[in-house]
Formats: sequence, structure tokens, C-alpha cells
Amino acid sequence: MSTTMQAVVKAHAAPGVELREVPVPTPGAYEVLVRVTAASVCGTDLHIYNWDHWAQGRIKPPLIPGHEFCGVVAAVGRGVTAVNEGDAVSAEMHVACGKCVQCRTGQAHICQNVSILGVDADGAFASYAVIPESNIWKLSPSIPAEYGSLLDPLGNAVHTVLAGAIAAQTVAVTGCGAIGLFSIAVAKACGAAKVFAIEVNERRRSVAAKIGADVVLDPAKDNVEEQVMDATGGTGVDVLLEMSGHPAAMRQGFALLRTGGRASLLGIPSRPVEVDFARDIIFKGATVQGINGRKMYETWFQMEALLATGKLNLEPVITHRIKLSEFAQAMDVLASGEAIKVILKPE
Amino acid sequence: MSTTMQAVVKAHAAPGVELREVPVPTPGAYEVLVRVTAASVCGTDLHIYNWDHWAQGRIKPPLIPGHEFCGVVAAVGRGVTAVNEGDAVSAEMHVACGKCVQCRTGQAHICQNVSILGVDADGAFASYAVIPESNIWKLSPSIPAEYGSLLDPLGNAVHTVLAGAIAAQTVAVTGCGAIGLFSIAVAKACGAAKVFAIEVNERRRSVAAKIGADVVLDPAKDNVEEQVMDATGGTGVDVLLEMSGHPAAMRQGFALLRTGGRASLLGIPSRPVEVDFARDIIFKGATVQGINGRKMYETWFQMEALLATGKLNLEPVITHRIKLSEFAQAMDVLASGEAIKVILKPE
Amino acid sequence: MSTTMQAVVKAHAAPGVELREVPVPTPGAYEVLVRVTAASVCGTDLHIYNWDHWAQGRIKPPLIPGHEFCGVVAAVGRGVTAVNEGDAVSAEMHVACGKCVQCRTGQAHICQNVSILGVDADGAFASYAVIPESNIWKLSPSIPAEYGSLLDPLGNAVHTVLAGAIAAQTVAVTGCGAIGLFSIAVAKACGAAKVFAIEVNERRRSVAAKIGADVVLDPAKDNVEEQVMDATGGTGVDVLLEMSGHPAAMRQGFALLRTGGRASLLGIPSRPVEVDFARDIIFKGATVQGINGRKMYETWFQMEALLATGKLNLEPVITHRIKLSEFAQAMDVLASGEAIKVILKPE
Amino acid sequence: MSTTMQAVVKAHAAPGVELREVPVPTPGAYEVLVRVTAASVCGTDLHIYNWDHWAQGRIKPPLIPGHEFCGVVAAVGRGVTAVNEGDAVSAEMHVACGKCVQCRTGQAHICQNVSILGVDADGAFASYAVIPESNIWKLSPSIPAEYGSLLDPLGNAVHTVLAGAIAAQTVAVTGCGAIGLFSIAVAKACGAAKVFAIEVNERRRSVAAKIGADVVLDPAKDNVEEQVMDATGGTGVDVLLEMSGHPAAMRQGFALLRTGGRASLLGIPSRPVEVDFARDIIFKGATVQGINGRKMYETWFQMEALLATGKLNLEPVITHRIKLSEFAQAMDVLASGEAIKVILKPE
Repeated sequence: MSTTMQAVVKAHAAPGVELREVPVPTPGAYEVLVRVTAASVCGTDLHIYNWDHWAQGRIKPPLIPGHEFCGVVAAVGRGVTAVNEGDAVSAEMHVACGKCVQCRTGQAHICQNVSILGVDADGAFASYAVIPESNIWKLSPSIPAEYGSLLDPLGNAVHTVLAGAIAAQTVAVTGCGAIGLFSIAVAKACGAAKVFAIEVNERRRSVAAKIGADVVLDPAKDNVEEQVMDATGGTGVDVLLEMSGHPAAMRQGFALLRTGGRASLLGIPSRPVEVDFARDIIFKGATVQGINGRKMYETWFQMEALLATGKLNLEPVITHRIKLSEFAQAMDVLASGEAIKVILKPE
Repeated sequence: MSTTMQAVVKAHAAPGVELREVPVPTPGAYEVLVRVTAASVCGTDLHIYNWDHWAQGRIKPPLIPGHEFCGVVAAVGRGVTAVNEGDAVSAEMHVACGKCVQCRTGQAHICQNVSILGVDADGAFASYAVIPESNIWKLSPSIPAEYGSLLDPLGNAVHTVLAGAIAAQTVAVTGCGAIGLFSIAVAKACGAAKVFAIEVNERRRSVAAKIGADVVLDPAKDNVEEQVMDATGGTGVDVLLEMSGHPAAMRQGFALLRTGGRASLLGIPSRPVEVDFARDIIFKGATVQGINGRKMYETWFQMEALLATGKLNLEPVITHRIKLSEFAQAMDVLASGEAIKVILKPE
Repeated sequence: MSTTMQAVVKAHAAPGVELREVPVPTPGAYEVLVRVTAASVCGTDLHIYNWDHWAQGRIKPPLIPGHEFCGVVAAVGRGVTAVNEGDAVSAEMHVACGKCVQCRTGQAHICQNVSILGVDADGAFASYAVIPESNIWKLSPSIPAEYGSLLDPLGNAVHTVLAGAIAAQTVAVTGCGAIGLFSIAVAKACGAAKVFAIEVNERRRSVAAKIGADVVLDPAKDNVEEQVMDATGGTGVDVLLEMSGHPAAMRQGFALLRTGGRASLLGIPSRPVEVDFARDIIFKGATVQGINGRKMYETWFQMEALLATGKLNLEPVITHRIKLSEFAQAMDVLASGEAIKVILKPE
Repeated sequence: MSTTMQAVVKAHAAPGVELREVPVPTPGAYEVLVRVTAASVCGTDLHIYNWDHWAQGRIKPPLIPGHEFCGVVAAVGRGVTAVNEGDAVSAEMHVACGKCVQCRTGQAHICQNVSILGVDADGAFASYAVIPESNIWKLSPSIPAEYGSLLDPLGNAVHTVLAGAIAAQTVAVTGCGAIGLFSIAVAKACGAAKVFAIEVNERRRSVAAKIGADVVLDPAKDNVEEQVMDATGGTGVDVLLEMSGHPAAMRQGFALLRTGGRASLLGIPSRPVEVDFARDIIFKGATVQGINGRKMYETWFQMEALLATGKLNLEPVITHRIKLSEFAQAMDVLASGEAIKVILKPE
């Protein structure tokens, strides 16, 4: 095994990244060294690349970004028992503190002292990555190889969809980026009655249809509220999965929600949003859930089980496969809206 | 419209029934007269026919049995607004009192003063039946015609399957009569990870495989516990759906259940059952649910939504279609185990 | 029994009411005539009196307002079995349609076709009121007499407090009108660990302390966020009960809520409110519940049970007792903020 | 600090224990050394002392028993950050593996590879005990000193009581040993409407009354079913807390449970129990929960919060305080039924 590796490095507090040859890291006693076989790109990585306001406040260069990946165990620390060399793995990149109230009560996914690999510490846009044993996820052989790099965003979708009843429910998904699209597939696989996909981008709408949405609507052209109300007998949808973080989409989503319905919010608005709480939440007796990350590790077990059924075809969401060394190109196709999910391949 | 109709009548406190011509009943102000197009036969009807111990204590002849059916509205009482003449309908035949604690707290399905049409009052094995407006269920045109007569047992299955998490769960179904079989179909449609069907009767096992069970086991020949444990990594199943009421099946089901799992019991044992509560329930931290009837009317909305997705193919369970006038033959094929679900057709 | 009675009548589409002598109403077959012994005044009644924007859109004069009351059954329709002449009763004044999705799935409190007695039809500010049998609540003799007139707002409080876990939880109540105050009492009776009452009005703050709040804070003077964070070890409160409907209080409440906490919103904001969804709901993984009315009739059973324990001392909230004939005076003390809860006594 | 300490040692595979002077153990990197100030005795300790069937199968001498205690941190391993020398602490003695499905999904209390300190490894009947940092619980100064040694059984009670709705509920507690008695106190502190305590032992019944039971019944003399049904209007109790493990008490408890009620079972029957599942669980639509240990660590937070309110007076349950060196006497008073809870004091 080589002692150096290829890595994407955020080297400076400025836009862009560098492709560098850096030392292969050494795993500690309770850590696992993984040879990365595929890594996928998240909107967060674009924020880091562009060095936007959020990135400036959070990222401390130098940093190897990347928090969606899969690979093969290359070495394990002496205390590790969960996996062995050669195992196919992915990982939860939110490293929880284990000591806060949330961690001690089964809510590690909202740990108050979380550190995210690829954001707060080195991540997976490299040939190798070091992961704490607690966070390693051994992949079932029944799961298609590249899908292992999608478990982070797929987990967001599974967490959101299964945060309440979904079987036999009508569902509106507002925002069809990768997670919104995965949510459609998951909802349908779990018995959702009818899924309305609402999205302005044409390419995303076409993938929404392919991945299983029953009705695909363009809020710029369609009378969304009228169509959803008609299709639900004037009742509205049982479940809103808000995946966009856009104020207008949030408000439209709430308007579509039936009295007594559930709204699960995953999309992150960049500023405060004005909502008609009286009409859309209080009189409706609605339940609104903030959704963050993936449950550790309930969501992972659920994902594995759903993938093993073969009912989740994630293929339509993967629009590009690019060499890790051509990282800048990945940024371009994402920024242009041409790509939905890009998978990077280290060499 | 004729003033008399064909009806199956339990005329006397003795085995058997009579086929009679009786007056077509008149609906009250808040009642609906339905022309029966299909009625299906339940084990309860066989108990009434055979005049067994349970029937002797409960049934007051003369009675028209039959509580699974569908039809077309022939007339409505003057206060009825929910349906109109000509509407395709089915009905919930448990008539709740509306005044007990259970009824007033959303649990009408376990009403303490319930009266069951077809058991405590005239039912649907006739050309016409009278149903209170509150209990009528208008059928969506998207639902295959005969399926309307199966909503009572399908509702039992939906109620049991959806009484807890089912998506991404491993499931054991003990007992594959009609309700057990429907449970398999419902569980799969709602994202169950893997369904183990456990049944001694060969015909039922073959239908279990057709309707979607992943693994079909014969407890008389297979080492059920070993196979289920192997297939679940030694953990056991997340969910037990007990549909047989047989003591041995119940005990086996509990043994298969994982620590922290859910056991939903619908099958009715005919006498007390000895269970190892310490090992199988308490140390396991298991949740055991008694399931009775269908939720009024949440289960009905769920059924309609699931049927509308087209994912529930109930066809394999319908083994016989028989004229209402040949009722005795229906009893024969059920008693012999040759039939699973028999649909009766009034003429 | 006299054939006429004293009644407060909203006679015209204009501010004010009239005190009139009107015919005693006659109960229908499934209705109950109640002689009103006490009625209490809600903010809604003040809106009707003042003929504000909301009232102009909703109220159709002539109308007898009043939806919080208790009394004694004076006569029953021929179909009534739930109560008898002479029974002490109160009533749920939301009359649900019984036919919408919500009504048929145990959510009658958010019925889409609700009619409210005292708002949409004649209510209880009179010597007698007619109530549908389904909505009558027979009072346990163990409940103090006047408390029967407070069950509507007490029910709002019980519904809100018990909409999630409350035992061993830290709780912030924003807004200490009658319902907020009742919530404090209910939360403490149900094992809340520590209740923070947050209210600008001095009189209400003093009642908050009397009724059981552990910490009473004035947002105009105290550094509420600092004090609550200090007292919860920097975690924030487990539960927010928002009872004010004021945008600033809502935002403050959300800021106090711990990651993973529950926010139950009952106060009605008069216009859309801007909230930092990302920080206060989504990243927090918070659950936000809109609360409307009282569960029919689960909340009523809960109220009765809690009142019977003797742990709810509602007395501090009743600030005035006024003759029905002096209705205008009740409006004055409420409008001035001098009163919290006013009980009216028909003669 | 001395290098040796006083300890109760199960030295041989035979009845009895020895009081020995043994080396003070040394904490590992992530362990805490606690000077024990009080330890309390559980029925399990009596099983170990008597060397009964269960003990012979589970215990590997030599062993220091004792799993209920509190003390002061004497030293910490170099990796420990949760507590410091001098902190008052107690501990959860179930050490979970952290790697099984249950541990990874928030159910560490039913870990499949649990090791119990005081049962499977050395415990707390000694002057010092070593505890993994993950299992240490720092005591709030507001909690009475000796109560710290009662958190294990109090936690069983809190876990059982709060495993479902308790506020405004009627409750039957079958079996009033220490955990049953604690359950009564916890249920009342959390707003239970009425608690029925059912117990054959007179001393325990008298403590049940002191600790807050509303009705105390002796199944040997009272017609328990008649009295409970009368007091609940013929409905039965909402909640059964089964704390005895006795077949007759379990069956009686189920008979008392209302249709739709919750039965939480903590008492461990020593052999399979025959129950009328049809009548008592299935037709009733009951929910039966097996309860094991305490939730790690949700129950501990709940306990701390409830104790801090001052509403839990556990004093009546502590019947004896005995020097650790007089361990045999503690066994005697427990075996005779004279004692309920015995607190041991190391010197």
C-alpha cells in the first residue's frame, strides 16, 4: 500500500480546492482506514468550494471535504471488532459526542456537539479516509456497489419519509433535488397512496416521473393547489415532505397539507420564513417536524432493508460519474443545474 | 323492485340453514338498502352453520348471516346524505354504540356494546341488506368489483399490519388463512423487508408464495426457528403477525420475535394459552397488541388508498365463486380446507 | 317552567349586544335543554361584542353568544339516553359533522364542517341552551360546581399539555391568559419538572405564580433566554406551550426550545409570522404541533379524571363573577385587562 | 487512600457469602472508581446468596454482588471527562455492548450482549466499585443522599409507569414490593387519576397506602375485581402495572384491564403462564409491554427530574439500614418478608 494518496483539499480560506498528494492517514485504536471506491457530491461541497458565507463561518482549512462515500476496509485499529480488512463499507459522517442529553436519549442525530467528517474534519474526497469504528456501516452484499456512496442523502430521505405514517398516505414532495427524488422512491416503496412531485427544474421533474412520482407539477406553470386539491377530493395531502428550503415552496406545501396532516421539513431555508401559522398549522392541527441527518443508526438499518428488497431504483438520480481528479468539472455540472447526483471515482 | 328476496336464514337453534324467500327490508330514516352483488364467507359463518358452542351462546335465530359483502344502493332513508341510489358500496358491519368510553375516544372498533350485522342482527347473505348510514362505505370506482366484498377481512389484515412500523421490517405471519394471506400482501405493499409465511396447509402455503411471501415454511417439516434466525442474522423478526389462534403457532411466533419487536395478535385461540412471558415478552421488551376488527374508519381509508395503488392483488385468495342458492356447497369446500375465500353471488 | 328567558343577543351587525327576553328553545329528538347555572367569557365573545374584522366575517346576527357554560338538564328529546332531567352537565360546543375524513378517523376536533354553538348558532349566554346529545358532558359530582363552566378553556389546556410527554419535562408557557394559566396547573399536576411562565401582564404573572409556575418571567424586563438556559443547564426546555399568538413570544418560545423538543401552539396569531425555521425547527429536529379545540372526547375524560384528583386548583384564574344581566360590565373588565376569567350568572 | 477494602464476596458455588478484605480495584482509562456510601439490596442479591437454580446457571464465583448503590468519585481514568473526583454519583449497572441492533437503535436497555455489574462482573457491595464512564450518573445535589442508591429500582418503576400515557389514567399495580411501591409514587406524581394497589402482604399494603395508593386491596380477602370495576364505572383500569410475576396476579391484572388498555409487565414469572389471550388481550384490543431495566439513559433523566420536584417521597419503602459487615442480617430480614428495601452502609 502506498504511503501517499490523491486528495481534494480545501487549502485556503478562498474559493476553489486543490488536488494534492497527501500522506495516507493512520487509523487510531478504534478507527478504520477505508479505501474509497466512490464518493458522491452534496450541495454542501459546493458551498465549501464556492467559499460562501456559511463556509467562511464553519470551515477551517486545510480540509479534505466529502461526506458521502463507500469503499473497502484497508486497515483497522487494534480495538476494532465491527469490521475486518476487505469488508465493503460506508459510514455515517456525523460523529456524535455521546455525552449530551440528546446522545444519551437516543437522539444522537441531533447531538449538540456533533463533528462532521468532510466539514469539521477530513472527509472522503480522497483515496483513503479514516472513520471511527462507531460510525462505520458494513454494506450488505445485496446492495449495488455505487449505492453505498448514496447512503447519506438516501438516509435523509428515509429519515424524513419514515418520520410518520406513510403507507396509504397521499404525499407532496416540494423540491426534487437528490434527496427529494430519493424521498419519492422511498415513499412509493413504503406504500404511499399517491405522490405529487413539485419542482421548477425540468430535468428534475423528468427524473421525478421516472423514479415513481404519480403526479409531477411545475409551480411556475401549473395551478398546483387546484390540481392537488382536486386529486385528493378537496382534502389536501396527508404528508408534506419539504425538500427545497425555499420560502414559496414551504408556504405552498403548507397550503396543500390536509387538516391533521404531517409536514416534515428537511430543506434548509437560508433566512427566516413567514408562514401563516394560524391557517396552516394551528387551525389545521398539523404536526410539523424538523428533520436533521439520519437516525443513528435506525435509519441505516431501514435503508439496508429497503435496498435489499430491490424496490429502490436510485439509478435515475445518478446523472454523472467523474474522476476524482476532475473535481472542478463536477462543481461545474452541479452549479449549472445540469447534474443531480455526481459520483466521484478516486483512481 | 320485487318485495321479496332470496335469503340464507338460520331458522332454528340447530345445525344448518334454510334458503328462504323473505320480504325485502325497508330502510329507516338513517339507513341504506343495498342490493347485494357479492358476499364472501368467513369462518364465523361456518361456526353459525355448524351451530357450535360459540354460536349457541351468541346467535338468536331466526337470523340472516353474512358480514362481508358489496353491492349497489337500492334506496336510502330520508335522512341519508352520505350515499345515493346507484352508488357502489360495502359496509363495516360492526355497529358501535357511540356512547361508551371507547366510542367516545376514537376506539369504536372495540365498542363495549357492539352489535354485528350478520351475527347479532340480519346480515348480507341475501339479495338485499339494510345498513346504517354511519357504516356504509362508498366504493371508489378504481377498486375491482368483487374486492368490495373482501374489505372486512382485508381490513383485519390492514389493521394488524399497520398497527406499528412495517416499512423495512422483517415479518413472520403465523397462519395463512384469508386474513393471514392478505397480511402478506399488505405488508409487502407497505415496504416490509422480508415476510416469512408459516402455515401447515399446503394449499395455503402455495397461495402465500403467490401473494408475495419471501419465505414459506411448513412448521410440520421445516425447522422454522432455525431458518428464520439464520435469515435474520440471529436477531429474529421485527414483527409477528399472529393469524392462526393456535397455541403452538403463537408460542413459535413469540420465539421468532426479536428483542424489542412487535407481536400483533389477531387469531383467536379457543382457550387460554400458556406462554413463556419472562423469556418471550418481558426480557425481550416486546410489545404485544391485541387486534380486533378494523379501525372505524381509519382502516377503511387505508384500504381504499392501498387498493387504489394497484399493488394489492387479492385474486389468489379467492378460490371459489358460488351461487348464494348453493350455500351448502360453500360450507362444504370451506370445511374440507379445499377453499380459502368463497364469494357468494345472489341471483 | 317559564316559556321565556333572559338572553344576551347579538341583534345587529354592529358593536354591542342587547339583553332580551326570548322564548325558551325546545329540544329536538336528540337534543338536551339545559338550564344554565354559570357561563364564562372567552376572548371570542369580546371579538363578537366589539364586532371586529373576524366577527364581521363569521357571525350572522341575531345570535346568542357564549360557548363556555354548565347547568342542569331541564328537558330531554325523546331519543336521548345519555342524560336525564336534573343531571349536572357541561358541553362541547364544537358540533362536528361526523362525515368528513377527520370525523371518521378520530379527529372530530378538527372537523372540516364544524359548527360552533355560541358562534355559528345560539349559545349559552342565556337562562337556557339547547345542546345535541352527542355533545353533552355529564359532570361528575366530585367536580366543583363553577368549574363546569371552565371545561372549554381547561380542555384547550389539557389538550395542549397532554399532546406529548409532560412528566419529568421542563416547560415554557408563553402567554398567561386563562388557558396559559390552566396549562401551568395541568402541567404541574402531570409531573412537569419545572414550568417557566412568560408573560408581560403583571396581574397574570402573579396568578401564574399562584397556580404553580416554578419561575415567572417578564419578557419586558427579564433576560428570559438567559434565565431559562441557565436553569436548564444550557439545554433549553423540553416543551414549549405557546398560548399568546404574539409573534415575538412565538419566536422567543422557539429560541427557548431544546434540540429535539416539542412546541405545541394554541395561541392564534392574527397574521403570518416570520420564524427562523432552519435554526429553531429543522436543525433542532423539533416537533411543532398545531392545537385546536379539545379532543372529542378524550380530552373531556382526561379533564374529569384530573379534576377528580383534586390537584387542579383553578380558583386563582376566576377573577370576577358577574350577573348575566350586567354583561357589558364583563366586557369592560376583560377589555381593560383587569379580569382574567369572568363567570356570568343567569338569574 | 487504603489499598484494600471491605467486600461482600460470593466466593464459592454454594449458598452464602463471605466478608473479605480485598484489593481496591484500579480504574481503566475510561473507568471511574467510586467510594460506595450506600448500596441497596435487590431480590436478585437474595437469589445469589441462596444459590438458587437461576444463580447456579448465571453466576461465576468469585463475585462481588450489588448493583444498586451511590457514592463519591474517588479516582478517574485518564480518558474520563464526564465526572471529576469528589462528584456524587450513582450508576446504571447494565453495561451494553454498543454494537448489537438494539444498542444501535436506541434500545441499549435490551442489549443482546449485556453484562450486569454485580451479576456478571464485580458490583457494589464493597467500599469501592469500578464503573465504565458511559454508565456513571452524576447525582444532582437536589436529590436526597440515600436516594442515589435506589435509582436502579426506581428506574424500573419510572420506565414502567412512563412506558405509555399515565396522566388522568386509572392504574392497577399488582405486587407491591419496592418497585411496585415506587410505581405507585411515580404514577401519582405524574397525574394518575386513581391507583389501585393489590398485594397480599400486609406490611407492603400499609406502605402502599402511605406512598400514595388511592385504594389498597388484599386479593386474599377482598373481591378485587368487583371493587375495581365498581370504582371505574364498570370499565376497568386504563393501565396495569404488573410487578409481581405471579401467575394469579397476572391473570387478575388482565381481568381488571379495560378494553383498549395498556398492560406493562415488569415482574418476572418463574415459569410459563396460562393467559386467556382471546378475552383479555385480543378482543380487548389491549397493548401488552414487556419492560426490562431502565432506558439508557432517558429513564435516568426522567428520574432526576421527578426527584428534583420533591414529589417523590421514597422514605416509606426504606425499612432497614444495616452495616455492610452485617450482610447476613440483611438477607434474613428480606427472606422473612419483614423488610422491603434494605440499605447497606460500607464503613
